[in-house]
Amino acid sequence: MTVSHETLGAAAGAGSPLAPAWLEVPADLNALEAKLWAHDVERTPGGELAVGGIGVAQLAEEFGTPLFVLSEDDFRARARAFKDAFDDAFADVCGGVDVYYAGKAFLSSAVAAWVAEEGLRLDTCSGGELAVAAKAGLPGELLGLHGNNKSDAEIERALDLGVGRIVVDSLDELERVAAIAAARGDQDPGRRELRAKVMLRLTPGVHAHTHEFIATAHEDQKFGLSMAAGTASAEFRAEVAEESGIEAAAAASAAEEAVAAAAGHDSIELLGLHCHIGSQIFEPEGFEVAAVKLLTFLATMRSTYSIALPELDLGGGHGIAYTPVDTPRPAAEIAQALAAVVRSTCGDLGITPPRISIEPGRAIVGSAAFTLYRAGTTKDVLVDVPADAPGIGEEGATAVRRYLSVDGGMSDNARPVLYDADYSAVLAGRASDAAPQLTRVVGKHCESGDIVVRNVYLPADVRRGDLVAVPGTGAYCWVLSSNYNYVGRPGVVAVRHGSARWIIRGETEQDLLSRDMGV
Amino acid sequence: MTVSHETLGAAAGAGSPLAPAWLEVPADLNALEAKLWAHDVERTPGGELAVGGIGVAQLAEEFGTPLFVLSEDDFRARARAFKDAFDDAFADVCGGVDVYYAGKAFLSSAVAAWVAEEGLRLDTCSGGELAVAAKAGLPGELLGLHGNNKSDAEIERALDLGVGRIVVDSLDELERVAAIAAARGDQDPGRRELRAKVMLRLTPGVHAHTHEFIATAHEDQKFGLSMAAGTASAEFRAEVAEESGIEAAAAASAAEEAVAAAAGHDSIELLGLHCHIGSQIFEPEGFEVAAVKLLTFLATMRSTYSIALPELDLGGGHGIAYTPVDTPRPAAEIAQALAAVVRSTCGDLGITPPRISIEPGRAIVGSAAFTLYRAGTTKDVLVDVPADAPGIGEEGATAVRRYLSVDGGMSDNARPVLYDADYSAVLAGRASDAAPQLTRVVGKHCESGDIVVRNVYLPADVRRGDLVAVPGTGAYCWVLSSNYNYVGRPGVVAVRHGSARWIIRGETEQDLLSRDMGV
Repeated sequence: MTVSHETLGAAAGAGSPLAPAWLEVPADLNALEAKLWAHDVERTPGGELAVGGIGVAQLAEEFGTPLFVLSEDDFRARARAFKDAFDDAFADVCGGVDVYYAGKAFLSSAVAAWVAEEGLRLDTCSGGELAVAAKAGLPGELLGLHGNNKSDAEIERALDLGVGRIVVDSLDELERVAAIAAARGDQDPGRRELRAKVMLRLTPGVHAHTHEFIATAHEDQKFGLSMAAGTASAEFRAEVAEESGIEAAAAASAAEEAVAAAAGHDSIELLGLHCHIGSQIFEPEGFEVAAVKLLTFLATMRSTYSIALPELDLGGGHGIAYTPVDTPRPAAEIAQALAAVVRSTCGDLGITPPRISIEPGRAIVGSAAFTLYRAGTTKDVLVDVPADAPGIGEEGATAVRRYLSVDGGMSDNARPVLYDADYSAVLAGRASDAAPQLTRVVGKHCESGDIVVRNVYLPADVRRGDLVAVPGTGAYCWVLSSNYNYVGRPGVVAVRHGSARWIIRGETEQDLLSRDMGV
Repeated sequence: MTVSHETLGAAAGAGSPLAPAWLEVPADLNALEAKLWAHDVERTPGGELAVGGIGVAQLAEEFGTPLFVLSEDDFRARARAFKDAFDDAFADVCGGVDVYYAGKAFLSSAVAAWVAEEGLRLDTCSGGELAVAAKAGLPGELLGLHGNNKSDAEIERALDLGVGRIVVDSLDELERVAAIAAARGDQDPGRRELRAKVMLRLTPGVHAHTHEFIATAHEDQKFGLSMAAGTASAEFRAEVAEESGIEAAAAASAAEEAVAAAAGHDSIELLGLHCHIGSQIFEPEGFEVAAVKLLTFLATMRSTYSIALPELDLGGGHGIAYTPVDTPRPAAEIAQALAAVVRSTCGDLGITPPRISIEPGRAIVGSAAFTLYRAGTTKDVLVDVPADAPGIGEEGATAVRRYLSVDGGMSDNARPVLYDADYSAVLAGRASDAAPQLTRVVGKHCESGDIVVRNVYLPADVRRGDLVAVPGTGAYCWVLSSNYNYVGRPGVVAVRHGSARWIIRGETEQDLLSRDMGV
């Protein structure tokens, strides 16, 4: 057995035999990779991490750890940047774009208010998210409601709030929305003119992720109405056959059936079409292919049924960088590429471009926040070196992996376990000149898979009590948080221009036990 | 393109080209596979699912859906059965076994009380779980405290409660426990005799899951102290070299170092050793290999250091059936196999067997509960048949997959997304004679991966409003639940002998918004 402790404090560039090939040893462990952080995060001259002018030690002292720290300025700036980039690119195509912030990534009433103040709208997907928007006082017309299984109560609530659109996901739901809206009109003549504003969610057979996309005829997923030929019901195909012949009937899709059905309901105002092609998307190509498919379908519906369909939503899924190797395109590049495709496709089809909308969530909030943890137990564990480790060929070679435990974990960030997601981390409370040490940041939960950052180089002198910050935790972390092991969920602090405040407070032990009904 | 709708309502045994090979078409869709359910779950003559004599329609009416339904009788019976099986098997080895119910699987104050009433103890892993135990009024000596990163506050709290044992996970923690216990003695002479009772968690290099286990020299995980040669610190090896020579020093492990260190602290009472080798384990072999390694180490420590080490905990990880193909061994078989190994190994080593303890969690609560959902949107989606589907070789063939949406999902059961876990489901509110329909049960969350049961045959006439029950959700479901999409977490109802009561109430919208600090 060869113990290679010396591979640990690696010379810059050398790396560890336990590190993945893509992970470089940073030249400067104190430097901040700009794309991972809010724009107002920096190291003070003393070496401490600060956001909006407030040092992390003060935040930890005042609010405790673990803690989600959200830069309000950065959130607002990214929201505006998305809106501006798409407005600019689409100005001469359809007069601008409606940007719906996808609240499922992260939502509080304060965030909902910021969204509206920056000129965006809010995409919700449940009665609970509608309640948050209502608490923030957002006008209903700024809201969209998503969901594959909306309850009647959620549909009622959306109509009560006067939402700008309900994104209908199935034929079954279309009929329920129509019936509920009609019944409201019957019960209350004042509501008779208030038709339910509906978008139809279609599946264009495009699935995108990071740099790749795939296009298929059929999508094996719960969302949406298929655009593929032959997916309409037998009843609808029989109707089409009678009116337009056997070929048209064979080509009829569930999407076409839904458009025809929606147009037939007096209680529904059909705004247009919607698609959503994936998540953590870095390149525009998938969006482009989906846009062409939707526009072509839209043109066909206009010509076949004389249905206007004035709007088209190209969904969300815009990606962010979680580690230095992630390279998403800037919003402006995606916007320009999409605008070019929409312009040329509409030109080819001879149609007036529909009003475009998009639904970024992660791309606005993801990098605006980091999680602040307090380091606890450090453990150097001897592990077998993988056979294919570069430079370490010897059978039975071992190396040391450092495990650094923090005071949170999979309860506040489930993404590493859920999606095998990679994150990054820095020593936050101070700078350090110590050598780089390959480290695995783990949580405090009673589960060996409880990993926060699988592989990162941290200074070798990180020790109990140090503050550690993990960037990129604004999206899909707090919203997926649990009370695993009866650990309270961290709160979210918003920082702006030197002041910090809870927007969601942390859970207390009293909160944790409040629903326990006793012995 | 060949559309094979007809493969759907499959003749018994034929299956669907979209189903995994292991999934059989049930001969009777109304039958309950006994091993998946609490013993007091049955179908009434009218066809409705009932537990402890209460029908699911009444439960849904009174408590709403989704709902965790826990059979108190079944929980108690499984707890007793574990205790009895291990007590019987180990009676003549070490006079019986201490069974610690692993609260991380599921815990409420009522459950903690049941555990104590049935003669078991309670394994906790956080201050929050200690708080639940305290709320239930459990005596401290019945409690164990686990964790790889216990805070000083958690250690203080455990000592305040007089816990029966702290399972120490690292050298660093050992020193902290010793220091905290010593400081308490210094501050309060009345506490001077109250030493911290400690078990040391070791990693024996065994990892087990379902029918398999692997044994390695080194474990690449955050928990425990390595038993592998050469893992002691340089300081400890130098000490050993001086006292016992170079060979002994080279063989010294972190585990040995910890035993020696623990024995050197007046404020610590070293009870023994602990290991935990995996989860969802079906066969005894992994436990046996670990037991032999621990006993051999224990004998060496007794002879080398004259340290008694009177206890040995073999951990948890005992598996359950989630689907009909899962075949875990009964507790009695595991107990007897382990008792035989402990008896013969101790005989070979010439040592008095230590008192054995185990920590089952899932095996007690997992099958005692099911989740009751209300069915919503049903969607038949045309999908491409996998090329290797049995009996469907044709290029471009398609089939229909039915998606059945329920009113919960990944917020109340994250295991399908977290661990790719398989579950089963039945139509619960009524019986049905309809043909079997391959169905994917999905949740209501805004995520395509939100799957509850990936593949199950349900009656083809399941429709909106039907009650659907998913068995085996007692463990690692409620405890991992989130508020994703601002969906309230379901409560847990305990049913016994015809009466039902909340043990944890469901979350209201008020709960959901209670920590939102406004705009």
